[in-house]
Amino acid sequence: MADYNQLALEMHEKHQGKIEVVSKVEVKTRDDLSTAYTPGVAEPCRKIRDNADDVYKYTAKGNLVAVVSDGSAVLGLGNIGAKAAIPVMEGKSILFKEFADVDAFPICIDTQDDEEIIKIVKNIAPVFGGVNLEDIAAPRCFYIEQRLKEETDIPIFHDDQHGTAVCVLSAIINAAKVVGKKMEDLKIVINGCGAAGSAIARIILAMGVKDMFLVDMEGIINKDVPATMLNDNHKDLAAQTNHEGRTGGLAEAVKDSDVFVGVSKPGLLTTDMVKTMAKDAIIFAMANPTPEIFPDEAKAGGAAVIGTGRSDFPNQINNVLVFPGLFKGALAVRASDINEEMKLAAAKALAGYIPDAELNNENIIPSALDKNVAAVIAKAVADAAKASGVARI
Amino acid sequence: MADYNQLALEMHEKHQGKIEVVSKVEVKTRDDLSTAYTPGVAEPCRKIRDNADDVYKYTAKGNLVAVVSDGSAVLGLGNIGAKAAIPVMEGKSILFKEFADVDAFPICIDTQDDEEIIKIVKNIAPVFGGVNLEDIAAPRCFYIEQRLKEETDIPIFHDDQHGTAVCVLSAIINAAKVVGKKMEDLKIVINGCGAAGSAIARIILAMGVKDMFLVDMEGIINKDVPATMLNDNHKDLAAQTNHEGRTGGLAEAVKDSDVFVGVSKPGLLTTDMVKTMAKDAIIFAMANPTPEIFPDEAKAGGAAVIGTGRSDFPNQINNVLVFPGLFKGALAVRASDINEEMKLAAAKALAGYIPDAELNNENIIPSALDKNVAAVIAKAVADAAKASGVARI
Repeated sequence: MADYNQLALEMHEKHQGKIEVVSKVEVKTRDDLSTAYTPGVAEPCRKIRDNADDVYKYTAKGNLVAVVSDGSAVLGLGNIGAKAAIPVMEGKSILFKEFADVDAFPICIDTQDDEEIIKIVKNIAPVFGGVNLEDIAAPRCFYIEQRLKEETDIPIFHDDQHGTAVCVLSAIINAAKVVGKKMEDLKIVINGCGAAGSAIARIILAMGVKDMFLVDMEGIINKDVPATMLNDNHKDLAAQTNHEGRTGGLAEAVKDSDVFVGVSKPGLLTTDMVKTMAKDAIIFAMANPTPEIFPDEAKAGGAAVIGTGRSDFPNQINNVLVFPGLFKGALAVRASDINEEMKLAAAKALAGYIPDAELNNENIIPSALDKNVAAVIAKAVADAAKASGVARI
Repeated sequence: MADYNQLALEMHEKHQGKIEVVSKVEVKTRDDLSTAYTPGVAEPCRKIRDNADDVYKYTAKGNLVAVVSDGSAVLGLGNIGAKAAIPVMEGKSILFKEFADVDAFPICIDTQDDEEIIKIVKNIAPVFGGVNLEDIAAPRCFYIEQRLKEETDIPIFHDDQHGTAVCVLSAIINAAKVVGKKMEDLKIVINGCGAAGSAIARIILAMGVKDMFLVDMEGIINKDVPATMLNDNHKDLAAQTNHEGRTGGLAEAVKDSDVFVGVSKPGLLTTDMVKTMAKDAIIFAMANPTPEIFPDEAKAGGAAVIGTGRSDFPNQINNVLVFPGLFKGALAVRASDINEEMKLAAAKALAGYIPDAELNNENIIPSALDKNVAAVIAKAVADAAKASGVARI
């Protein structure tokens, strides 16, 4: 593998970051200046003053997303703060542009006070058509997202939760097809119950499965865990999962299960554990950069379909397949929200992108570099927004 | 004159606003993705976590300005709010890019509570190298700017005040040369004592003039106006101007004065008033789009040098000559502030841009379209920042 750390330092320093704000119009002549700026610019201002919706007609708002982070849970680096989070948020911003021609701008917030963050995002919302929350620690991310969804009129989407969930669900849909199992017959284990794990659990619940086991550092979440050890999010999930009432840790959870989804730490799943899973096990080991189990080890345990977060193994589960198209679709119909229907539509569109005849155990999800995916997802999401009543045009 | 209102509506709608956020790096291959985003992006994050100053090395911060407004005093339109202000702030942003290759992004804030605005700007400052405050009503703009200057470590600059002041000062310097008067002998009238008028007064005071009269809607400001009618800003200026203790209105102020600077309302200055001014009067009538007096009317009163804010008359006083280069210079040396020395340096560099031999009563300031001006100002400002101790590199 190339030394991406060194390459990244060189690239970021050479270009002084990755984003650039450019003009869509020429400013060369006196007429240009009088049209783009004074005196002409006063007229679109007046139109918007008289009809707030005209902000979508005369400004960049309708295609502009804020990538918002407080730097409290960045990649595997943890709470590194607003400044250190900027390279990731700039990266996210350029992926929006490169993959879906959506403009995006990093907003890195220098406070981790929930109420302050909510107030800031609400107050800078006028220029943005949507907000992509990013790398905000659980459980704070749930509360901040919920409040912003309630108190703004633009789509709010925490990608670490829902982008990951959509991507994983689409991978499970296709993997199940490859091994010839039905969604509703699956027993699924999710290892790691933070932002990503919780959202994956919820979207899978929405699809209906036989049973699901959520495993956190304390072991399998079940209704009998003392309430003091569970936050509201975990309590809610405990009530909907683990119908068998299993106790113990990961080893106990994976026994006879069909799917392992890892959003946790390197090396937690062993070949021996995989051997105890149901036949034709499906393994998505997404800890980055070192997965919960390497593909060859999972294969040795009898796994049939294996995916990771890495680009150097087959079946890379990468959010970049989801968020650009998802926002593109939401913005296209000026959706007031990104709701469950839109997320499910995105997952199904992503799964359906690969024709059934081309599905195999090393091809269940499109390449993260495939720039045609976004348009397909956008179409499905826009349709779902219309059908579910959140589209405004 | 072309119908810029109509042209502006068409142009803003066609392009859906004026700004676009693009990538400075390619994202085509797996290596690109691994360098610009995960896993490589973690390394610049770590560097910044370990040394905050590296944020200038690995992100766009060092060349990125926030154009911040609460929409409370937009152009001549008044308090039209955050959304309606966006076309102006997008316009300002593209002028930064087009004239000085500085990236700038509009932040339109949906509150007019001073403390909230200050908190928001401080908390979103991590990604920005500087803040251009814009179209915030006086006297709130003075307080907000002062607090942000004290509480952030990046340059804060309210363009309506200081951009205008720098531009007007440079015009006065050159106009005085054309009519053969010395700066220190001038009596100057400033009509309008809001954000722009106050800042013009202060920068002119810093250059030293014989006397100055500030005229507001209540008349000439003097020490005897009841304190209840003056805010702190006006009280401070009252103490430093009108040494003669003149009373009355604009007509009384301009009598025998050498310079009229209008940042007020259309038509307030008459030909008859100009006739009472000193010989070879200098008139800068900058109300937009209709000036305090039209050039032919001022000429009929005997004025020698006449400037307006308009591009269709000679001597257009336009801030775009100042702010792009001023920020470029401040950012180039990572200045912690934009101080008086830097503003004076900018004014002198702008005035000096036209060689003395080419100065005449219709050529005292460069064309607003001259894109070579910014580099000259940037150099002078960077030097002044170093000399005054605010440069950090």
